[in-house]
Amino acid sequence: MSALKVYGNMLSPAVMRVMACFNEKELKFQFVPVEMRAGEHKKEPFISLNPFDGDVKLFESRAITRYIANQYEEEGANLVVNGKGKQMASFALCMEVEAHQFDPLASKLAFELVIKAYLGMTTDETVVEETKEKFARVLDVYEARLSGSKFLSGDEFTLADLHHFPNLHYLMSSPIKEMFGSRPHFLAWCTDILARPSWVKVLQMQKEDYNLIS
Amino acid sequence: MSALKVYGNMLSPAVMRVMACFNEKELKFQFVPVEMRAGEHKKEPFISLNPFDGDVKLFESRAITRYIANQYEEEGANLVVNGKGKQMASFALCMEVEAHQFDPLASKLAFELVIKAYLGMTTDETVVEETKEKFARVLDVYEARLSGSKFLSGDEFTLADLHHFPNLHYLMSSPIKEMFGSRPHFLAWCTDILARPSWVKVLQMQKEDYNLIS
Repeated sequence: MSALKVYGNMLSPAVMRVMACFNEKELKFQFVPVEMRAGEHKKEPFISLNPFDGDVKLFESRAITRYIANQYEEEGANLVVNGKGKQMASFALCMEVEAHQFDPLASKLAFELVIKAYLGMTTDETVVEETKEKFARVLDVYEARLSGSKFLSGDEFTLADLHHFPNLHYLMSSPIKEMFGSRPHFLAWCTDILARPSWVKVLQMQKEDYNLIS
Repeated sequence: MSALKVYGNMLSPAVMRVMACFNEKELKFQFVPVEMRAGEHKKEPFISLNPFDGDVKLFESRAITRYIANQYEEEGANLVVNGKGKQMASFALCMEVEAHQFDPLASKLAFELVIKAYLGMTTDETVVEETKEKFARVLDVYEARLSGSKFLSGDEFTLADLHHFPNLHYLMSSPIKEMFGSRPHFLAWCTDILARPSWVKVLQMQKEDYNLIS
């Protein structure tokens, strides 16, 4: 009996992020497809879940991953750094940097360069160029950090890495890949984490669901 | 000997958020004023801190508050919900909703209606109207939640409430206050938390620093 349910659209970055977290924790879950209406729901995908332990319903992908990682701490990979000290500080910082520095720019580039093509819309090159300029500075910070540790917040893979999966995946199939290529530590990290079974499984589920050819 | 330092501009919402957290934890800190250059630093205030226990340096206000709340758990108010269960889920959700739903709209309105006036710039009424429409829907969600509990994530004041301080403060002195007034639970919560000594002290420090008349 599984009561863990994820509602949403399997092509949504937020849903992909949550599914990867379930896979890292080796937890079974039921995916419930939800057709998004036009407008608001395209930007803010609806997701909720009902874990084993009651009637908890959550939206916001990063709240779900944090809850799952703590609630099922004994399962699968340890994805969080709790408690005190420098490692916790590093983890807290990387989580915020992803959400507030990396994601807004990466999402914009993914939309212009990948999603728009998929939807038959025209890329706005001015937006791309402006965003790339800011994104380069963020990537330089990542490159410096990743030259000193295997993963973003230290030697262990955490949610601070996992939260990057959807954007990295989309951007690796776009011209932005060149920006990664000129930053070797970033590229190595990106290639390494995108090869994790938890993420490969998400892409496999997408393909099965949509019967897409890779 | 205090090694806790906050670098920044005391009028920056991020700095105000961090100082309020220090006050809630009843921790002494040294404020080091940093003149922001034009451009990037206006939008992303530089903040770092050196806690007692080493050479930890952090930016991102929400990473700092989370670190401080956990590192000094035995001091002052308990501001976080760790561990497992529904209360932790509720806390994680409210933290994300503030950062991703509330803050982007509230910051935009505060900029248009308060900061621009301060800087002698002209409010863009089209931006205000569009943002108010979206903000009303977020406020409705808050109103529903706050009709069931005293604070956002439950019966205890947490970082999920505290992170709202700067935006609520600015918006209460703007026409947006009317939107709060039509949502009684929201207004009561807002009035209640803005009266906390930790926040009153931040405003007092601002006044002393800038020698402003209230």
